Amino acid sequence: MSADIDVRALFLGDKAENEETFRSLLGTLIDDHIGWRKNYIAADVPAISQEDRRAPAFVATSDRVQSVMTELSQRMRSGSIPWNSAGRYWGQMNSETLMPSILAYTFAMLWNPNNVALESSMATSAMEAEIGADFAALFDFKDGWGHLSADGSIANLEGLWYARCIKSIPLAVKDVFPDKVGGKSDWELLNMSVEDILALVRDFTPDEYDAVKAASSRSGRNIPQLGKWIVPQTKHYSWVKALDISGVGLDQMVAIPVDVHYRMDVDVLKTEIEKLVAQKTPILGVVTVVGTTEEGAVDHVDKIVELREEFARKGTYFYIHCDAAYGGYGRALFRDVDGTYIPYEKLAEVHAQHNVFTSDAAVSRDVWAGYKAIENVESVTIDPHKMGYVPYAAGGIAIKHKEMRNVISYFAPYVFEKGIQAPDMLGAYILEGSKAGATAAAVWVAHRILPLDVSGYGRLVAKSIDAAHRFREFLSKFSFTVGDKTVKAVPLSRPDFNMVDWVLVPEGIGSLAELNALTEKLFDYSSYLDGPAYNNRFITSHTAFSTADYGDSPLPFVEKLGFTKDEWEKTGSVTLLRAAIMTPYLTDDALFAFYSEQIGSALQRRTAEALGD
Amino acid sequence: MSADIDVRALFLGDKAENEETFRSLLGTLIDDHIGWRKNYIAADVPAISQEDRRAPAFVATSDRVQSVMTELSQRMRSGSIPWNSAGRYWGQMNSETLMPSILAYTFAMLWNPNNVALESSMATSAMEAEIGADFAALFDFKDGWGHLSADGSIANLEGLWYARCIKSIPLAVKDVFPDKVGGKSDWELLNMSVEDILALVRDFTPDEYDAVKAASSRSGRNIPQLGKWIVPQTKHYSWVKALDISGVGLDQMVAIPVDVHYRMDVDVLKTEIEKLVAQKTPILGVVTVVGTTEEGAVDHVDKIVELREEFARKGTYFYIHCDAAYGGYGRALFRDVDGTYIPYEKLAEVHAQHNVFTSDAAVSRDVWAGYKAIENVESVTIDPHKMGYVPYAAGGIAIKHKEMRNVISYFAPYVFEKGIQAPDMLGAYILEGSKAGATAAAVWVAHRILPLDVSGYGRLVAKSIDAAHRFREFLSKFSFTVGDKTVKAVPLSRPDFNMVDWVLVPEGIGSLAELNALTEKLFDYSSYLDGPAYNNRFITSHTAFSTADYGDSPLPFVEKLGFTKDEWEKTGSVTLLRAAIMTPYLTDDALFAFYSEQIGSALQRRTAEALGD
Repeated sequence: MSADIDVRALFLGDKAENEETFRSLLGTLIDDHIGWRKNYIAADVPAISQEDRRAPAFVATSDRVQSVMTELSQRMRSGSIPWNSAGRYWGQMNSETLMPSILAYTFAMLWNPNNVALESSMATSAMEAEIGADFAALFDFKDGWGHLSADGSIANLEGLWYARCIKSIPLAVKDVFPDKVGGKSDWELLNMSVEDILALVRDFTPDEYDAVKAASSRSGRNIPQLGKWIVPQTKHYSWVKALDISGVGLDQMVAIPVDVHYRMDVDVLKTEIEKLVAQKTPILGVVTVVGTTEEGAVDHVDKIVELREEFARKGTYFYIHCDAAYGGYGRALFRDVDGTYIPYEKLAEVHAQHNVFTSDAAVSRDVWAGYKAIENVESVTIDPHKMGYVPYAAGGIAIKHKEMRNVISYFAPYVFEKGIQAPDMLGAYILEGSKAGATAAAVWVAHRILPLDVSGYGRLVAKSIDAAHRFREFLSKFSFTVGDKTVKAVPLSRPDFNMVDWVLVPEGIGSLAELNALTEKLFDYSSYLDGPAYNNRFITSHTAFSTADYGDSPLPFVEKLGFTKDEWEKTGSVTLLRAAIMTPYLTDDALFAFYSEQIGSALQRRTAEALGD
Repeated sequence: MSADIDVRALFLGDKAENEETFRSLLGTLIDDHIGWRKNYIAADVPAISQEDRRAPAFVATSDRVQSVMTELSQRMRSGSIPWNSAGRYWGQMNSETLMPSILAYTFAMLWNPNNVALESSMATSAMEAEIGADFAALFDFKDGWGHLSADGSIANLEGLWYARCIKSIPLAVKDVFPDKVGGKSDWELLNMSVEDILALVRDFTPDEYDAVKAASSRSGRNIPQLGKWIVPQTKHYSWVKALDISGVGLDQMVAIPVDVHYRMDVDVLKTEIEKLVAQKTPILGVVTVVGTTEEGAVDHVDKIVELREEFARKGTYFYIHCDAAYGGYGRALFRDVDGTYIPYEKLAEVHAQHNVFTSDAAVSRDVWAGYKAIENVESVTIDPHKMGYVPYAAGGIAIKHKEMRNVISYFAPYVFEKGIQAPDMLGAYILEGSKAGATAAAVWVAHRILPLDVSGYGRLVAKSIDAAHRFREFLSKFSFTVGDKTVKAVPLSRPDFNMVDWVLVPEGIGSLAELNALTEKLFDYSSYLDGPAYNNRFITSHTAFSTADYGDSPLPFVEKLGFTKDEWEKTGSVTLLRAAIMTPYLTDDALFAFYSEQIGSALQRRTAEALGD
């Protein structure tokens, strides 16, 4: 039962507290694998004899291996970041990862399965299919599907590829079988809903379907006609790359400003769509973000979906991709153990039942509603290597309509199977080819141990939100003196997720530019730029909000820092320290008190250095 | 020294013969990591106390972990392929992988570095930069660069992306700064060499360069104008996908037939290019393959490069990407320990010095020349997870001109660094985003232990070619009787690399279709389709050469099987068993004799079953 899950048993531990368990599980798994090797046709002659092993060349090679491994250890220990620390790393979306996932990867890697085709990975292909089903269930895609990808950038590219291919189908049908869409104008064809498009091709014969696919955007035809791809102005660079790589092109990108909560401004979005529709410019799709990488903001997916419904009634339809690379696992916070999406009114009660939060951190109705509406988008990026606490590289994607797969599928002769289906030949249905089955093993054990609901991942994700809440509370009261000046921490507005951005402001700082320089310096001191991370007592990351990407959204914050609108306009950018809080440990009061004191004194010392005091 | 390398010391062993070494190295690495965790600010309070560990919820969670790991082990052991077997797996490009690479991956994963940016991976980013330099050196790219990718499909897509972006630059310059290309026709602009394009933009100011990039193919403009992308007719499906995904489109694909050696037919290529030039259709690029996935063929890269030079003199220039995903590491066979490319006349002598081959396997001048000419292509795919013997997922790409990076680069705010360079922010220079630093560790140790020359990887790759040669020799003499019929093995023509394709032909078989059905059945029996691979005594893969992909290239082979040209034309396809021989062990006479006998009897039994005898 959920109450039994103690997430502290799922990590090796900041000080390797679970060392014994780790070693014992690892030992058993290695024994299991080695036993398997020895017993595969036990009568076979071993390829390496004891005599071979004593030969000088063999011994010399072993020595060489030994010395390279020693250098590897030296380099890893001197060039790595203590993400495992319970309270000294608050930067990128990193913490230590799930011990069972590390073990599963290590174990599965000994067989080196390749999930491109079932033939090369019977066990791990089945696991990836289960993971895909888990993703679909997480997002309430009743007839959905999903798979792992190399990373979130690739999953985003795949999302755009899906959109481009599917939205191009009606024009392709018109090219090849004009009678089947007789009477429809190009505008109507470009605004068919995904469901209608899937229905249109559902009864085509295989040959007809192939002919249509050959005339779809994969041919290179009609891509510019598909129209605009709308992204938040704070656009993650993966979207810029995806537009480039997919041939849709950056000319088609429309960037919508974010509001003061760093969510896509739905009013501006509506106006922009109206403008485009008035110009008869089609809209290929809209990207909505759940968990922005700089602010942890959760878009109003619900309002964007509503907007689509509103426009659909007027004959305009756009694809929606949800970039939940970072926030995707957060939906587990709202799923009850029976898989239902918990009504907002019952949320606090269910969370209390499951001891989800230990502080007064809570989730707003906006965030709840944004997450809920993901069930209505066509595709979602979700990265196990972010809030899934699984080691790199493990990205993922889920689609609402399994049938969408057929629109992008291909087949390779050398992995040809009878009666091809995913996962029989996953490579035919995805952007990538060969892929590590070990990744599927790592994600699979994580999902089996931590269900994707309020009893499992919900609790783990909540720990991070909880710690972020505590950290933000701490910062909001944090001040110290350097020389005769008071320095005050100013955190950004309350985040939707587990990201805390903040600035340290010395009394009487002359200008925003000066403050930005100080923040940059504090980052330099609190990162690998200050020498070995191992010697650093507080490590963080940083970001910058510029008018180019953020418009005036940061203005209220900048004013809170004590600067005028003029100063903001003159400088055009504000630099912040930035912490994705992922540590699973800091929901314990005593531990939080210990580390906040440590962080406080490290920040104080670093600020004094930076101010030359 | 090279003579000291015994590749048998580099694997866990088909029967885990090197178990002791494996366990000892693993133990040391785990100790090293755990010591590091404990000693990072040793004064910090541990987050998990002994008391916590005794709490019922903690114990219950640990039990849950234990039971999921047990299920993982059960599923892996019952659903994996014995690629480690010294002589019973002859199928896909798989064997066991390098023990040091497995250990390095496991070790580095404990820190979970992310090579997207130096900030998250100081040690492993440096390793990836070294690997990139290794790739560049391997291909004699004096001013080259390279990096790891998720897989070969992604590397191929990146190669096409490079071609599309770079070839679009001259038209972009014309759009933005027409004076800078004054007097040049569009045809001339579309036929500028990559070196000339790089020279053209070299002295642009950063702002000018950005303006040109914004008007390049990343905008979505001019993509169809770039012209044709030429691939071998046996095209790997990754090329079909790459054309689709990149927006270049399948309409632009021109497929060139292969010759009887399954290499791109350079005469036909020449005729096709002449035709396109006469029509004033530009040629974006040509894909040449080193190590085809179905036949192990090595293209005449040299002749294709010569062809380009010939056409360049007449004002036509095409980009060349070499798909050496499979064969790339094979170039180590021709690199002396000082890095020079060994003249063909000296090759046998140098190989003898380094005990490269143990049979009369040898490399033809054609193959030697094909490999040599890779130095003249713009980009190359090379997969460490194929002939690099590194676990999945480890693809890779190298480019001839480091400056080409700048044409495709992007920057993300949250990984912004001062004075950005690769590897500071690798994500800005590649198709992907987040990526496992552990992969770099795994490839790095492999490259440090096995230099990319005749003393290191050359010897390892040679072992596989050697074993393939032995296997093909064995097959060419292999026959047995089933009932009153003689069954004879017929191998395909001598491969350029380590791939052996063959068919078992029963005396008096009625038709090619019947033979294909038999071969399919033999594959079913020799794969996961026959139930647990663990119980199977011989496992292989299969392929089919159809007229659609192969034209009449298979005809000489089909005639050797005893069928007429009519029969071939009627059936249109021949199915073969297919073995990428990667075992590093079977260059020992006694061992080869043991396994060839085992294989022989397994095949005989399976054929009898298939023939219903």
